[in-house]
Amino acid sequence: WGSPARSRPRQQGLYFNSFVTRTNTCGELRSAHVGQEVTLYGWIQYQRQGLFLVLRDFQGLTQIIIPQDEAHAHVKKLLSNAPVESVVRVTGIVSPRPPGQENPKMPTGDIEVKAETAEVLNFCKKLPFEIKDFIKKSEALRMQYRYLDLRSSQLQYNLRLRSQIVMRMREYLCNLHGFVDVETPTLFKRTPGGAKEFLVPSREVGKFYSLPQSPQQFKQLLMVGGLDRYFQVARCYRDEGSRPDRQPEFTQIDIEMSFVDQAGIQRLIEGLLQYSWPEERGSITTPFPSMTYEEALADYGTDKPDTRFGMKIVDIGDFLRGLDIQFVQKALSYPHGSVKAICIPQGVVSDALHTCSALGSLRLESADLLEAAGLVLRDPSAFHFLWVVDFPLFLPKEENPAELESAHHPFTAPHPSDTSLLYSDPTKVRSQHYDLVLNGNEIGGGSIRIHNAEQQRFVLEKVLKEDSEVLSHLLEALEFGAPPHGGIALGLDRLISLIVDAPSIRDVIAFPKSFRGRDLMGNAPDYVTPEELEPYHIQVSWPLEEKEAKKN
Amino acid sequence: WGSPARSRPRQQGLYFNSFVTRTNTCGELRSAHVGQEVTLYGWIQYQRQGLFLVLRDFQGLTQIIIPQDEAHAHVKKLLSNAPVESVVRVTGIVSPRPPGQENPKMPTGDIEVKAETAEVLNFCKKLPFEIKDFIKKSEALRMQYRYLDLRSSQLQYNLRLRSQIVMRMREYLCNLHGFVDVETPTLFKRTPGGAKEFLVPSREVGKFYSLPQSPQQFKQLLMVGGLDRYFQVARCYRDEGSRPDRQPEFTQIDIEMSFVDQAGIQRLIEGLLQYSWPEERGSITTPFPSMTYEEALADYGTDKPDTRFGMKIVDIGDFLRGLDIQFVQKALSYPHGSVKAICIPQGVVSDALHTCSALGSLRLESADLLEAAGLVLRDPSAFHFLWVVDFPLFLPKEENPAELESAHHPFTAPHPSDTSLLYSDPTKVRSQHYDLVLNGNEIGGGSIRIHNAEQQRFVLEKVLKEDSEVLSHLLEALEFGAPPHGGIALGLDRLISLIVDAPSIRDVIAFPKSFRGRDLMGNAPDYVTPEELEPYHIQVSWPLEEKEAKKN
Repeated sequence: WGSPARSRPRQQGLYFNSFVTRTNTCGELRSAHVGQEVTLYGWIQYQRQGLFLVLRDFQGLTQIIIPQDEAHAHVKKLLSNAPVESVVRVTGIVSPRPPGQENPKMPTGDIEVKAETAEVLNFCKKLPFEIKDFIKKSEALRMQYRYLDLRSSQLQYNLRLRSQIVMRMREYLCNLHGFVDVETPTLFKRTPGGAKEFLVPSREVGKFYSLPQSPQQFKQLLMVGGLDRYFQVARCYRDEGSRPDRQPEFTQIDIEMSFVDQAGIQRLIEGLLQYSWPEERGSITTPFPSMTYEEALADYGTDKPDTRFGMKIVDIGDFLRGLDIQFVQKALSYPHGSVKAICIPQGVVSDALHTCSALGSLRLESADLLEAAGLVLRDPSAFHFLWVVDFPLFLPKEENPAELESAHHPFTAPHPSDTSLLYSDPTKVRSQHYDLVLNGNEIGGGSIRIHNAEQQRFVLEKVLKEDSEVLSHLLEALEFGAPPHGGIALGLDRLISLIVDAPSIRDVIAFPKSFRGRDLMGNAPDYVTPEELEPYHIQVSWPLEEKEAKKN
Repeated sequence: WGSPARSRPRQQGLYFNSFVTRTNTCGELRSAHVGQEVTLYGWIQYQRQGLFLVLRDFQGLTQIIIPQDEAHAHVKKLLSNAPVESVVRVTGIVSPRPPGQENPKMPTGDIEVKAETAEVLNFCKKLPFEIKDFIKKSEALRMQYRYLDLRSSQLQYNLRLRSQIVMRMREYLCNLHGFVDVETPTLFKRTPGGAKEFLVPSREVGKFYSLPQSPQQFKQLLMVGGLDRYFQVARCYRDEGSRPDRQPEFTQIDIEMSFVDQAGIQRLIEGLLQYSWPEERGSITTPFPSMTYEEALADYGTDKPDTRFGMKIVDIGDFLRGLDIQFVQKALSYPHGSVKAICIPQGVVSDALHTCSALGSLRLESADLLEAAGLVLRDPSAFHFLWVVDFPLFLPKEENPAELESAHHPFTAPHPSDTSLLYSDPTKVRSQHYDLVLNGNEIGGGSIRIHNAEQQRFVLEKVLKEDSEVLSHLLEALEFGAPPHGGIALGLDRLISLIVDAPSIRDVIAFPKSFRGRDLMGNAPDYVTPEELEPYHIQVSWPLEEKEAKKN
């Protein structure tokens, strides 16, 4: 399970021992406690020949000396026979370790506790694996025994830090800036195009709730309701089938404000992250740099550039124009034809005719290769935040480029300079959408919203050709004195995983689902009986072969 | 919408004007601001003859003087023509009100703002009702236009106070006592007997998630995982069809601790409520009184006694034994036969032979009657907390009294003095369950849990005769060094509704469902197409007549 030293982010001054009979945690005792009688509760991490054991709890490790005299024979027997990972209470006297036996690597390494009485509170049966190897075991095994994996110092650290960062965010929003924490429903109805929304059958025949992908509609309605400043640590749902490192339920820091502009939201988020940033990860400077969508694509070939390293895409068309290389000349002869390249350290130059997006991938792959070869391009302790702004408001539909769809969502307001283009040439309209990027990962996004009912109706009906009936409540709300408003949502799981440098968001979620959306510990989802489906007026459409098999 | 004076619980020192261009909120200006140029944003609450208007935001009301001179004709036109509930920006100079026109009932009643410039940010179309009457309108109308109802001072107050109380609870748990805020999944699987759990179809044919009624299993597994102290403001789900004042989704303050006993949890909750109690509701004293389940039934005829008033049930059997009243004598002749009564103030005595539970209802009905007649029995500003303890661990099943079911849930530990009875006479075992009652309402409940796998298996298989397979992960977890643990959950919606003296929990929830589980604003649940059901391998079982109708 490793040393729990990392499992103690910023925890001084807390009353960890309130309401219980322990006097101290296992990470707390120092030379100053020598002579005190203490009561500790924890798990046996290690036990040696009936002589001593190491007791572990969430806060650290303490060495316990097992008494060898006749009067304590009972204590010796108990502690020597309890298997590793059993839970025990130990009462004893804090003593200095014999000279030379101090362990400077251990926060409690100057002392040991001489057990006087002890109790085994629960035995641990033989573990299905060696603890030391557990971390190297297959992820499926770790997920099945998630409650054992949670005892590791790394997961303890990740979950505790997550809790503390969210608490600091709440302090900033609630206690400093007057935001109201409002819980919005998760049983709602389908949004237009909400193909990724889980359905929840209701007791009304044929009618379903759906689990929303975000509280978008509700937070806008709260602004219409005069709440002024809303936030929520919101549970969101997205049914994407099997996609790596996605979770069917995830958490976002969801924020909305009235009477605010794009810069206002950006300063709010910069302040929020600065305030809640964990000390042990250094400090972050604000304001964050900003880049337009167009610049991001041109220079990095992606709308979420990793700005920790250079190797920007450069246009070498002018340089090559004079050279007699046929495929280059052909490319340059097209309208908007260009030749671009990235410059890779140590003299390698790779030129390229593809799209910028391909060069963007090549840039990241090159960085991977160079780092595999020993060159450090991306400092793992560096945090490069970046705003990407001025996205297009609409994009051509992939399946039918003659039709338009929202680049983000239909409530996004057009850029103030482009409003008139909305009615003449919607493809040219930039939006008031902004993304927050951290080290090449999109960790947040938001926009100033449309607050004018006419404009919202125009976007839905004329540009997107959607049936606005399903959003009639929102359209009507905009007609009853909706204030100008905007907001943002931060992807909490991704943000925390970047802060703790975890390879997957599963490492910052207590009970994650596997990439197929399964809970491997509790075995969810699971079969239910036809009787259980009855109140919901649904039945399973079994594939024909299974149906036949059941009949026979 | 009433005066927003109540909508400002404990808000001093907050930066309500950060990140926006307003200089002040509408509740903020005082004589000290006279002479300052200010910019306010808000809704037109009232406008009179083009002379002045009252501007409202979440924090209060400010009187705006509409300029009458030629140079400001544009401003006058704008402000005079904007309908009530339109959103405007006003910039102007704070001035003292003319002598004699101060309004001492209004926090900003000493000043007014002389508008210099103004902008109508959004017009409000004609409201479907008179605002003043809105509050008296049918609840269905208020739910349909919830975003308008949210502008009322009462709902603003309720939601803001709720946010602040929860924030204080978080400070107490997280910042003072080392609890970790852990988010647990809501997509899980059916628990045994989970007849009230919503189902969520998955993409695996025939398999369903379910939305849990509480994070019970997860919080126990977190204790096995060594988290030590967990809390969560947890969204919970319960499908009860139509029941008055219940919501299909609700919120509980969910808490679990390792190495704790019943008294430890009780002291924690008392401290939590004392710490987070809003100043304007007075203070509460701790520890809360405690009563056994048996006492509660005997004295009040209910397990959630309202202890704000007396009228306890008294046994008058001995007194009546000597009298020659036949039905009384007959009742007393039964084994355990008794005659009980409650003493109602003003000399009325009602004696009774029924059960205590009927007398308990009679006691509450009598109180209603007496209060309708003008006698104040239950001080509306009094908060009487009460612990009810020593519940039975098992109860006879209603449908088959020869079988037992858990009085609360199968994870509840037996009372330490009754452990051996578990194996000999389970009906006699008291549990380590505790309920928290406030003014006759159950606002929380919890227990010390079984941490011994053998005991848990015995309860599930031998006493409850349930298939323990579906809980195999929990049983296995108990075998891997589960610490002794216990916890509690507080019903947040009910608690807040009692604190703000709201008639329904719907008044402390931003977007509640109607009592049939419908969202009347957005129209959820709703029909979906067969194509949308396809990925989930389900189809609607339409009643025969509808199916036939569709065919023809």
